[in-house]
Amino acid sequence: MGTLTDFVNGPAVNEERALANPFLRCLTRLIRAQDSHGAWESKSDAGLLADFILTKEQRRQIPIIGDPDPDMLWRLQIFYTCVGLVIEERSGLVTSPIMSMSHEGFGRVLFTTGRLVVLSKTLRDVHRFGFGTLGKLAEAGTKMVDDAIAVIDVYPNVARA
Amino acid sequence: MGTLTDFVNGPAVNEERALANPFLRCLTRLIRAQDSHGAWESKSDAGLLADFILTKEQRRQIPIIGDPDPDMLWRLQIFYTCVGLVIEERSGLVTSPIMSMSHEGFGRVLFTTGRLVVLSKTLRDVHRFGFGTLGKLAEAGTKMVDDAIAVIDVYPNVARA
Repeated sequence: MGTLTDFVNGPAVNEERALANPFLRCLTRLIRAQDSHGAWESKSDAGLLADFILTKEQRRQIPIIGDPDPDMLWRLQIFYTCVGLVIEERSGLVTSPIMSMSHEGFGRVLFTTGRLVVLSKTLRDVHRFGFGTLGKLAEAGTKMVDDAIAVIDVYPNVARA
Repeated sequence: MGTLTDFVNGPAVNEERALANPFLRCLTRLIRAQDSHGAWESKSDAGLLADFILTKEQRRQIPIIGDPDPDMLWRLQIFYTCVGLVIEERSGLVTSPIMSMSHEGFGRVLFTTGRLVVLSKTLRDVHRFGFGTLGKLAEAGTKMVDDAIAVIDVYPNVARA
């Protein structure tokens, strides 16, 4: 949902604002941490995250037959790792992710702290994992973290059990 | 630990007693449910469970290099499915298992009911999954179920959340 300012300043400002989001900051840090040969050193943050962005048209063109693309799985993995890390940062509690996925690209990811399930997501359409814009990527990650924090607030002692 | 009666009556009685255990009854039921072509119809319950039993010597002979044997993984899967089912039977609560395993045979299995983690197990040495006797198989499964039920008793409202 764009405001008037968004409209006037255009997508560049939107992108900048999205990149300042704590979730995306964590995500770019995680990606850079895996760049052991410095291949992405000259890439901007937006450049690093470019593959997470898929237009509707691009999504539609990805076949959902056969095993999901390994790069796609890597992005899925790093996205959910980031969700767990930001939950940890915000709650101060160790958060363990566990993911299970079939070869057809369906599955489940679960985050626990102590004895509490703080987040549980069904994975669907893993072949086409991506977000319309950087803003939507930031929003999706942040919402998951917010939801998890809200659950911890309801059951603080179980999260510490 | 054998009693005097065990000693006098020998392993056959021990086996009979183990097979009457609710966990093993559920396990044989689960295995028979997968026998869609009736290939195991003439097998006794003890015969069906025979592959779950490994002596120390047999365990030692299984190489732990390479992917675990698919039959071994099937037994691991059905064992933990059974743990989940017996937790459900005893608690009356839907229990979801989630398992994640590396190709090296290390992993984790987690059981949740509602927002509660009722059981979390590290999987090690999956290549050599097996138990010394039927009694030990029954004991291991029953202990996991007991542990899970104890956790549900501590946090009844989280298990129903």
